[in-house]
Amino acid sequence: MENYKHILVCIDLSDESKKVFARAQALAQSNQAKLSLLHVIEPLSFAYGGDIPIDLTDVQEQLQQQAQKHLESFTQESNLTSSDCHIIVGQPVAEAHRLAKEYGADLIVVGSHGRHGLALLLGSTANGILHGAGCDVMAVRVPN
Amino acid sequence: MENYKHILVCIDLSDESKKVFARAQALAQSNQAKLSLLHVIEPLSFAYGGDIPIDLTDVQEQLQQQAQKHLESFTQESNLTSSDCHIIVGQPVAEAHRLAKEYGADLIVVGSHGRHGLALLLGSTANGILHGAGCDVMAVRVPN
Repeated sequence: MENYKHILVCIDLSDESKKVFARAQALAQSNQAKLSLLHVIEPLSFAYGGDIPIDLTDVQEQLQQQAQKHLESFTQESNLTSSDCHIIVGQPVAEAHRLAKEYGADLIVVGSHGRHGLALLLGSTANGILHGAGCDVMAVRVPN
Repeated sequence: MENYKHILVCIDLSDESKKVFARAQALAQSNQAKLSLLHVIEPLSFAYGGDIPIDLTDVQEQLQQQAQKHLESFTQESNLTSSDCHIIVGQPVAEAHRLAKEYGADLIVVGSHGRHGLALLLGSTANGILHGAGCDVMAVRVPN
């Protein structure tokens, strides 16, 4: 079986996602694969309905700066350089698919809460990434 | 990151599932993990609506025997013994979850067609296994 060559790990910067990142690192190591990291910030206009009559540009920028700092503390013990880490404003599933395709990633690693029932219909990120992915997907179970 | 200890691979015995099996073997090897194989045959009464006025017991038994033979040809080049291979009549998602729990598997490997849209609502096996799994899930992309 051929090794994976490029692994894309998608994380939300929560404490739980440290487990996801560690698993992706272990897989990258055992496969001698390149590792890229993706953190997607959902646009505030999406999160709050899109019809708020105030300018959220500054808040959005602050969020991105905070995410950047958080990401640095997150990856400081890894071999990742800043060019391997991507903070993108958008929708997590779409951006994961897009970046995986753009980089020719052959494995996407993502956290999964393992929820079922309603969550299936509402669509978790792991579920969304699984559907429509052009490559393998590893869903790492994190606590609910 | 701790290695996986027990990997459960779920296959449908199609040609495509050879790729799924090979990936599970590679993961078992790099993690020095035990590998168990599950093939689930859906009961004919489920598949055909449950109200057929004929006795399907013989047909069901033949199906199981055929699956057993197919499974042997499938695993003959692996290190799996017959006690590591499970053919169960039931519903794939439920049986995968049950067996993973029973055996304390920490990773389930399953094929995924990567379909989206309607297939999400109809529920693919990979999607069903992802939801409600108590452990990590690796979805290996197979051709549509």
